[in-house]
Amino acid sequence: MNQLIVNTKNKKYKIVINSNFDGLYQEITKLNIPISKIAIITDDIVDPLYSGQVIDHLKKSYPEISSFSFIHGEKSKNLNTISDIYAFMIDQKLDRKSLVIALGGGVVGDMAGFAAATYMRGIKFIQVPTSLLSQVDSSVGGKTGVDFNGYKNIVGAFYQPELVYINTSTLITLPNKEFNSGMAEVIKHGLILDQNYYNEIKNNIDKILDLDDEQLQILIYNSCKIKSQIVSEDEKEEGCRALLNFGHTVGHAVERLKNFELLHGECISIGFIAALYISNQLGEITESTIDNVKKLLETFELPTSVAGLDPTDIYHEMFHDKKTSNNQLNFILLTDIGNSYIDNLVEKETVMNALQKIT
Amino acid sequence: MNQLIVNTKNKKYKIVINSNFDGLYQEITKLNIPISKIAIITDDIVDPLYSGQVIDHLKKSYPEISSFSFIHGEKSKNLNTISDIYAFMIDQKLDRKSLVIALGGGVVGDMAGFAAATYMRGIKFIQVPTSLLSQVDSSVGGKTGVDFNGYKNIVGAFYQPELVYINTSTLITLPNKEFNSGMAEVIKHGLILDQNYYNEIKNNIDKILDLDDEQLQILIYNSCKIKSQIVSEDEKEEGCRALLNFGHTVGHAVERLKNFELLHGECISIGFIAALYISNQLGEITESTIDNVKKLLETFELPTSVAGLDPTDIYHEMFHDKKTSNNQLNFILLTDIGNSYIDNLVEKETVMNALQKIT
Repeated sequence: MNQLIVNTKNKKYKIVINSNFDGLYQEITKLNIPISKIAIITDDIVDPLYSGQVIDHLKKSYPEISSFSFIHGEKSKNLNTISDIYAFMIDQKLDRKSLVIALGGGVVGDMAGFAAATYMRGIKFIQVPTSLLSQVDSSVGGKTGVDFNGYKNIVGAFYQPELVYINTSTLITLPNKEFNSGMAEVIKHGLILDQNYYNEIKNNIDKILDLDDEQLQILIYNSCKIKSQIVSEDEKEEGCRALLNFGHTVGHAVERLKNFELLHGECISIGFIAALYISNQLGEITESTIDNVKKLLETFELPTSVAGLDPTDIYHEMFHDKKTSNNQLNFILLTDIGNSYIDNLVEKETVMNALQKIT
Repeated sequence: MNQLIVNTKNKKYKIVINSNFDGLYQEITKLNIPISKIAIITDDIVDPLYSGQVIDHLKKSYPEISSFSFIHGEKSKNLNTISDIYAFMIDQKLDRKSLVIALGGGVVGDMAGFAAATYMRGIKFIQVPTSLLSQVDSSVGGKTGVDFNGYKNIVGAFYQPELVYINTSTLITLPNKEFNSGMAEVIKHGLILDQNYYNEIKNNIDKILDLDDEQLQILIYNSCKIKSQIVSEDEKEEGCRALLNFGHTVGHAVERLKNFELLHGECISIGFIAALYISNQLGEITESTIDNVKKLLETFELPTSVAGLDPTDIYHEMFHDKKTSNNQLNFILLTDIGNSYIDNLVEKETVMNALQKIT
């Protein structure tokens, strides 16, 4: 069992990485908070797989435990589902001392987190992420969010969990495509901050594809370490946290224009390459580095270009992103693998050239 | 111009009390924050009265200023209106550096505050309260909220404004009934914490009813002082802030059972008397004190009982309140005027007796 600490201005909490749910009860106890009831919020895929296991581990000490599941996927990520969750919370008479468990992937974590953040002006919650993407990225850092009118996470709150409990064995039931989508975030961590980590991923591709538990634990630990360091330093994305948005400026636009038919990891993978082409034009990244990254992404069946979209449409769509400020696009660019910076002064022509290369 | 400071763990901000909008621009400048755009959120009553004045004071320095108004009243306080506000915010391309101005009464402040708290995971906002209730109570302290399925403020967030700017002259256009509703909160401040203040209110009834500006400034200053001290000490209502809920346990139940047809101040006025009858049974408040309070409330045409409700229904309804924890009712009780405490062990019989007296 591995552990990390996230230490933000407002809250300090643990990330526990384990290969089963055996430590969950103990970790909740260690929080040392009064808990009146527990409500698991999950989706219809994860519910039959893992809700029972979680309940079994907790029901002896917390007899008042209930669960709510909604239809999986980004299409459920809206205020209607949030309303259903509120209705469930009221129905279960959850009070200010109740604990929410977000059990599932990124959508579940974002939605359950937002519901916990806004029910009775905020009740406590913990993240139990079951997808690779949520284990290495979205469960850590307190970003909760809901899509609205096609705008991804335009509604949300910064609201830190009390605990992140990662059971790596849940990845066995994760569809390949979802696993690969999570690998995009893992690769991102190497690209923006740690060349050694990037190389370690490259050197262990076979083990990763085999879901070797030891290798997965190392991977998740390293990614969570990078994520927690950034979040501890800059909880509200006023500085370095923006580096985590590498690939997201273009990625979110593609995600919207493709009507959320591509997975998040797939979209940011395309976004990585667009950002690298911008960096290349600015004289900072060689074509061979781009090829190197493309090759790694393709190993995990991640796309590096997108068919059927017009570069001009992608360009305009980027201005609808919440990261856009003062009508300026914010790009995260690389000077080398493992070295990134924020640039909000990229010329339109440079962006358009890059978009042409990925469409 | 009077000023107070609210100093919570997360934010320090000013309350400015003035008799016009002349100081607004300067106070916003003094915040010393980058502002890309300003969006005024208001209702259809306040909009024609004051939006123009506010815009006139700000448009020279902030040309990108827009306003959104929704139909006034508690019936608009729901997630549908919040969705309309989000759509407006997206339409106006508000970004993370945009500033929301909540211009209006309690409903506007709660709703605009919640929208600001959750749009893009939180953008900055200021409160410009135009009703007595919002000036002395709801605009200070960062409680934002939305009703859901008849549950008052069951959805919300703690989210502090950057500034509270009170223009007392807006009270001239406030309907009498609304003014009196605000007086309930003013009287509450005296009842729970400050006997001298309670007496000062009693001694200046005529001036208050005449809307004497000097008297109103004193009143609002004193109430804001009490409110800001409590909030500075206990932002998240984990301790003394609960004292502000005096009258609210019964008040909220009455509000819901009467389908929000009574004003908030009217409901808590009934709640005060219920709480006093509980205190009386516990041997802490005399009948003559109750009469004294009743008389003051009645001076401001505030009800001290409610017709057409069954005590048992009120009793059961109280358990649906978000202040109810572990199925225990929390009452704020008085030992004397100006002296309050929290009691969550009041017997059902005592509560029922009190409810019988007010129905």
